[in-house]
Amino acid sequence: MTEKKSTKSLEVPKTMKAWVLDGPEELRLTEKPVPQPGPAEVLVRIDAVSICGTDVEIITKGLPAWIRGGLPFNKNFTPGHEYMGTIVKLGEGVDEYKIGDRVAVEIHAGCGRCERCRQGMYTSCLNYGLNYEGHNKGHRANGFTTDGGFAQYAVNHINTLAHVPDKMSDEEATLIVTAGTAMYGLDVLGGLVAGESLVVTGPGPIGLMAVAVGKALGADPVILTGTRDSRLNLGLKLGADHVININKENPVEVVKRITGGRGANYVMECSGAPNALNEAMDMTQRGGRICLAAFPSEPALVDLAKIVRNNIYLYGIRGEGKSATHRAAALMTQKKFDAKLMHTHTFPLEELPTAFKYFRGRIEDAIKVVVKVS
Amino acid sequence: MTEKKSTKSLEVPKTMKAWVLDGPEELRLTEKPVPQPGPAEVLVRIDAVSICGTDVEIITKGLPAWIRGGLPFNKNFTPGHEYMGTIVKLGEGVDEYKIGDRVAVEIHAGCGRCERCRQGMYTSCLNYGLNYEGHNKGHRANGFTTDGGFAQYAVNHINTLAHVPDKMSDEEATLIVTAGTAMYGLDVLGGLVAGESLVVTGPGPIGLMAVAVGKALGADPVILTGTRDSRLNLGLKLGADHVININKENPVEVVKRITGGRGANYVMECSGAPNALNEAMDMTQRGGRICLAAFPSEPALVDLAKIVRNNIYLYGIRGEGKSATHRAAALMTQKKFDAKLMHTHTFPLEELPTAFKYFRGRIEDAIKVVVKVS
Amino acid sequence: MTEKKSTKSLEVPKTMKAWVLDGPEELRLTEKPVPQPGPAEVLVRIDAVSICGTDVEIITKGLPAWIRGGLPFNKNFTPGHEYMGTIVKLGEGVDEYKIGDRVAVEIHAGCGRCERCRQGMYTSCLNYGLNYEGHNKGHRANGFTTDGGFAQYAVNHINTLAHVPDKMSDEEATLIVTAGTAMYGLDVLGGLVAGESLVVTGPGPIGLMAVAVGKALGADPVILTGTRDSRLNLGLKLGADHVININKENPVEVVKRITGGRGANYVMECSGAPNALNEAMDMTQRGGRICLAAFPSEPALVDLAKIVRNNIYLYGIRGEGKSATHRAAALMTQKKFDAKLMHTHTFPLEELPTAFKYFRGRIEDAIKVVVKVS
Amino acid sequence: MTEKKSTKSLEVPKTMKAWVLDGPEELRLTEKPVPQPGPAEVLVRIDAVSICGTDVEIITKGLPAWIRGGLPFNKNFTPGHEYMGTIVKLGEGVDEYKIGDRVAVEIHAGCGRCERCRQGMYTSCLNYGLNYEGHNKGHRANGFTTDGGFAQYAVNHINTLAHVPDKMSDEEATLIVTAGTAMYGLDVLGGLVAGESLVVTGPGPIGLMAVAVGKALGADPVILTGTRDSRLNLGLKLGADHVININKENPVEVVKRITGGRGANYVMECSGAPNALNEAMDMTQRGGRICLAAFPSEPALVDLAKIVRNNIYLYGIRGEGKSATHRAAALMTQKKFDAKLMHTHTFPLEELPTAFKYFRGRIEDAIKVVVKVS
Repeated sequence: MTEKKSTKSLEVPKTMKAWVLDGPEELRLTEKPVPQPGPAEVLVRIDAVSICGTDVEIITKGLPAWIRGGLPFNKNFTPGHEYMGTIVKLGEGVDEYKIGDRVAVEIHAGCGRCERCRQGMYTSCLNYGLNYEGHNKGHRANGFTTDGGFAQYAVNHINTLAHVPDKMSDEEATLIVTAGTAMYGLDVLGGLVAGESLVVTGPGPIGLMAVAVGKALGADPVILTGTRDSRLNLGLKLGADHVININKENPVEVVKRITGGRGANYVMECSGAPNALNEAMDMTQRGGRICLAAFPSEPALVDLAKIVRNNIYLYGIRGEGKSATHRAAALMTQKKFDAKLMHTHTFPLEELPTAFKYFRGRIEDAIKVVVKVS
Repeated sequence: MTEKKSTKSLEVPKTMKAWVLDGPEELRLTEKPVPQPGPAEVLVRIDAVSICGTDVEIITKGLPAWIRGGLPFNKNFTPGHEYMGTIVKLGEGVDEYKIGDRVAVEIHAGCGRCERCRQGMYTSCLNYGLNYEGHNKGHRANGFTTDGGFAQYAVNHINTLAHVPDKMSDEEATLIVTAGTAMYGLDVLGGLVAGESLVVTGPGPIGLMAVAVGKALGADPVILTGTRDSRLNLGLKLGADHVININKENPVEVVKRITGGRGANYVMECSGAPNALNEAMDMTQRGGRICLAAFPSEPALVDLAKIVRNNIYLYGIRGEGKSATHRAAALMTQKKFDAKLMHTHTFPLEELPTAFKYFRGRIEDAIKVVVKVS
Repeated sequence: MTEKKSTKSLEVPKTMKAWVLDGPEELRLTEKPVPQPGPAEVLVRIDAVSICGTDVEIITKGLPAWIRGGLPFNKNFTPGHEYMGTIVKLGEGVDEYKIGDRVAVEIHAGCGRCERCRQGMYTSCLNYGLNYEGHNKGHRANGFTTDGGFAQYAVNHINTLAHVPDKMSDEEATLIVTAGTAMYGLDVLGGLVAGESLVVTGPGPIGLMAVAVGKALGADPVILTGTRDSRLNLGLKLGADHVININKENPVEVVKRITGGRGANYVMECSGAPNALNEAMDMTQRGGRICLAAFPSEPALVDLAKIVRNNIYLYGIRGEGKSATHRAAALMTQKKFDAKLMHTHTFPLEELPTAFKYFRGRIEDAIKVVVKVS
Repeated sequence: MTEKKSTKSLEVPKTMKAWVLDGPEELRLTEKPVPQPGPAEVLVRIDAVSICGTDVEIITKGLPAWIRGGLPFNKNFTPGHEYMGTIVKLGEGVDEYKIGDRVAVEIHAGCGRCERCRQGMYTSCLNYGLNYEGHNKGHRANGFTTDGGFAQYAVNHINTLAHVPDKMSDEEATLIVTAGTAMYGLDVLGGLVAGESLVVTGPGPIGLMAVAVGKALGADPVILTGTRDSRLNLGLKLGADHVININKENPVEVVKRITGGRGANYVMECSGAPNALNEAMDMTQRGGRICLAAFPSEPALVDLAKIVRNNIYLYGIRGEGKSATHRAAALMTQKKFDAKLMHTHTFPLEELPTAFKYFRGRIEDAIKVVVKVS
């Protein structure tokens, strides 16, 4: 890592460079006013931001249909949500952080007033997206419903921040939120995974982080399935005990064999493949649990009877709830696994389109493509 | 109710009348030796047994495929699992019950030694069905893997027993296990349902009991969906605040309207309709929970993305785990709802085929058809 | 009940009558400006407010030591927290409630940003009391850290509100928060109390509500201990199956006898007696659970070994967390128990000192003394 | 480690060497028949057994008062419960293990039929100790209520076994159950400790293992308190981030300082000091949790008000419930921490009294004194 902190300025200019989305596939670099933090908010100077598959969704299709609800395309919207940076300004009443602190961000700040937020389930906020004039419930989803990180500065609610230790590089810190999502998946599966078998289906970033976090918490064996050997090999480096290339082997059969015929305790589905849930159910032992962290783009034919017959619990998650990001950051700070292995490419902010090209085309086997901002 | 207890004999004969299943649809009344209870078991003189939809499955198709695993058809097997009766003999070491105690039974006694049983999840016993010579792990599922209740006597592990109070009729007591399944569904949904909205889809016996138990625990509103007005009206008597005849109204729209647009907190799916899960997801608010207590006979096209996007947790249950039967019995003993409303017909043991005819044909709107044995 | 809603004005004056606390025992009726609701807040016209033991603490000793932390006595502070009323003004962004809605209030609105609030444990907010200029984290505890209900109007965060149904009287509605505390105690004990034995020690308002809520949820038996037969008799009316006058009987022995020698599943300690925890432990079976909802004013000699040896879990609660007030309101709306039985006296706002005299002196066996404001 | 497996015999003799307890402090080496395993049991050839503080209690005072309940002193009883060995004979129906398997044992096998065992809380079995003729409920507590490990062979229920990997030495494997107790403590505290602050009070074997397991799961910081620097230094090697010698510093003040004034998230009390709970409460932040894993021999003066005011949950644990031993064994197998650091001395079976002398006198700073049997 390079330790550049001291040389970068904490002074805040009036305007900043920011990418905005004019329409599908129309990203444009522009100059915007630097936003100002309100109560319980800070201004973050963005140091690095990583590209996520959801960013591609947003850039190609616009903001998710479930958010837009018929709203016109926001011509001035800045996407990007896997970012980290340095606090340069504190909103009213903020003493939890101080200027100069390095922070990673998670996506969701709940409204704090709906039934879900009152339960601590802020990623399921019932006022999702209601952060507009006249409907301001205070919900924020960085890079989804409020301006995100493909820019020099962004405002963040303090609830979305996690400290980044001095010794962690900017690039690695952008992966905290990905690890946070994986951690949340393991949390909802019960959290007590030491010595239990865990299958992760799909070696995308969340799947790879699920392998790493699962192994860090003592899951054993950890089994990763996928189609590309390069990704599976990376899974081995991150802690997988077994990998299964589903183009070469039947994953259900292999999992059954590894688990002594009974199937796994837990499956974390990160592939979004149409048949993934059926296979997950066939891999899971009676009374086992499945977390769905990805989803097929089309409805899939599912044999629901298996869920009932085998007393399976199925947990859909979106994002990185219940402060899981903090737990993930703690594991990374303690070097329980090496998230940096997932970082393959770096580009400057100005070359965001090239960064997207590498990410989308998996050029040079790109996994995590990081954009350095400051 | 009729209080016949005192006049019935607690003496145990050598042989008994019992129905056995020779093959699909081949029920035959025969004479069998009265079985003997082992350690931690009792002999129950069966006083009444109710017919369940699963009994029909067993009688028409043989024991469930997931049990049989290729085993030959057991020519001497006695089905029947919703029974109650009187303890007439104690196995070694039993002092939890005494001779003369009236008891209702739940189905599952776990092996007590597998990973699930050690967790208290005995209905998900990993040694399900292993109660045969050479593979005896001690698991029992009354009327599924061990002889059941269409007979004069049955052996039961004490873990399957719940006390029946003096003032509860035999007929009502046969419904305890059905209420126990509904209770277990509400348990896995979190149990704290007072003031929360609950939709029950499907007004079969478990669905109707889910309405009653949910209302007894304070769920509000309780909404029941179905196709037959007679059943829906019964739901109203058992505590539903709203009923929706899905042949006349769009249930998703009505649930949304009743719940102020947000959808319900909980859905308990008891219909097994092919599209039931999709509708359940559409009825459920973000972060809501669905219990699957019935299942379609065929795989169904499911829009899994909704589970992920809406952070929905989905719980498959089979049976009546975690001592839910005891909680259900307690509510019925305290007259929190009137399960007797579901009891429509009574036949003597000798007329079991007629009882099945009424049940299967829903003759005279039959719901719970009870066979009186002693 | 009297239904006065329609005749009372929803217009908001500039000033209002309010009691303020000048010093210990120095309550004074004065005229104050009517406060204005901010974002996520409403202005409530107080219709009725009930006196709680904690109000007496505050009035005799000043605000609790754990709040004051050396702060000077707030000469303008209005206590009172068990109040209900009618919404007369909405703060910015509030559409969850509308003007004219009748509401009961719970005490705590968490800051929404500390570790506990993020978990949904808002009654344990780590920013308790920080609602002052320069330290404004947004926490509010009505009548403790922010002005309360012995006045004509009060500002409330919407998180503290619960709807009051038309058919519930003002007086009864003041008891919702008390029932909420009892409900929260049962929640932390696990919530699944149907058919389980529950001992409530101490027949004060929370204890009596614990009896009522526990019975409403099917606990059986519910056993209440105390020293005054009039209170114990009221417990019987609210649902207790057994009462024990500890001046006449040994409560541990009686509980053991009632529970077949094993002790109770749950004990909810509401007496604050010095020896209460020791007795609670002796009444509780191995693996049982105890909720402490009251506390002795002095340290007590406790045999901690019993907690370890018997695998007892002990839960301290303050207030009415995790939306338990909503569940309590739902049970009361559904008339699962009759909280009105606890209401003994009513006085107008001007006679607050008399109301306190009745409450403190238990004059005419006063339990809940209600002050009618509007 | 020495790998002696292959050279030791799996043949079972008729009689064996075993220590028995004739009376307080009267350990005697004798010859006993080798016991025979029943259904669901195995015979274990004991390879190594470690001495625990509870063994000292038993040897000096006889079996715990709570077990004996007035029973005469069992002249033929063999204590010892932290043992490991090799399976040499299988009881009826056992195929979960095979002859030659190396296993560590946990203490408790529940009855499988009481309310607690049905919940999976087998260490809180309500039939504790009932394993005698005429009262045989099947409960076993190795070395407490049934013969233990200071002998060449012992019968074990399969529920008490955990696999020991080939590469783990006998000596290390005796520590699995100690780590299991520490793991259980963290389980009951919620299990999600990554990035959360954990204080362990008391650097005995369980405390030291709590440090190691807590750190393995990512707790941060982990703070250990004690009186002897040698033990505290060992704590540092096992993963403590901070140690506090309470003879030199005020532990409450230091914990507050380390945790930014708020106190710790979790305290695991392993000292049994009279004032330990009061200090634990002062170290714990609002809404925090305390596990009591040790207990003072005398009742202690406790300021219970703090539990209520600070919404503290307090969990007493005895033993190593909910399969925590399996999780601990998995962490040790994966070398997440080095339990061997705690092993200080080894003696042969014949020298058990010397082993006890070292353990009791902490001679040469003895921590874990292991007796090698085979």
